[in-house]
Amino acid sequence: MDFTTAQEAELAFYRAFADSNFDLMRAAWDNEDIVCVHPGGPLMQTSAEIMMSWQQILAALGPVDLKVEVVYRLARPDHAIHVVREHFNRPDHPAQPPVIATNVYRRNRAGWTICAHHASSEPLVAEPADGALH
Amino acid sequence: MDFTTAQEAELAFYRAFADSNFDLMRAAWDNEDIVCVHPGGPLMQTSAEIMMSWQQILAALGPVDLKVEVVYRLARPDHAIHVVREHFNRPDHPAQPPVIATNVYRRNRAGWTICAHHASSEPLVAEPADGALH
Repeated sequence: MDFTTAQEAELAFYRAFADSNFDLMRAAWDNEDIVCVHPGGPLMQTSAEIMMSWQQILAALGPVDLKVEVVYRLARPDHAIHVVREHFNRPDHPAQPPVIATNVYRRNRAGWTICAHHASSEPLVAEPADGALH
Repeated sequence: MDFTTAQEAELAFYRAFADSNFDLMRAAWDNEDIVCVHPGGPLMQTSAEIMMSWQQILAALGPVDLKVEVVYRLARPDHAIHVVREHFNRPDHPAQPPVIATNVYRRNRAGWTICAHHASSEPLVAEPADGALH
């Protein structure tokens, strides 16, 4: 499954997320030289731990109503950086804050894949950073 | 104050942070098409709010012992992405978790600047993501 643009790789990544489709999630990711941080989570750098984390997340969430708002885009011939807001709508759950994600897509011979995903929850009410460190 | 490589811009950014040097922090950042997320904080996209946030953070922290560990690097002729761990050592404070930051540097005519900074606290004990959303 090859993606011919960064947008296609991003679409696959978020479709996999929304549809709880682990095979598609695995296809969207590069295998090496990758990095992933889930909200509040540790830095992960191996394909094994990153894929295991997605397997757990997709299994726990199941299909989910997810809208993705791209707020920043830096596009280059061989890679792209998108900062997005992920809006989850789960009718049977309390309102969730959006998740901010910085995503990096990279072009390899086979096509485009996601190689970096750094996500954090945005506060529901915007406030200055808590000041603990920065 | 122009920086001739991404490394120089990164050094300036973290020296500004460690030395609580707001002028250097401002010089390290691009003026437009920028994005900044502090740990637990909202997405910021204007120079005015990003600079105000740094002014507040630097004033609140003062000079600080900060070590930066680069864990991922994607370098291109006109920009670079570094994922780093920021280790803060504050002898009179409880041990702080490292901060994970995804930093994007961009080359303009005048030199290199930082254009994106997405930071989040890493849990002190690595655990699976909390599963709330991902």
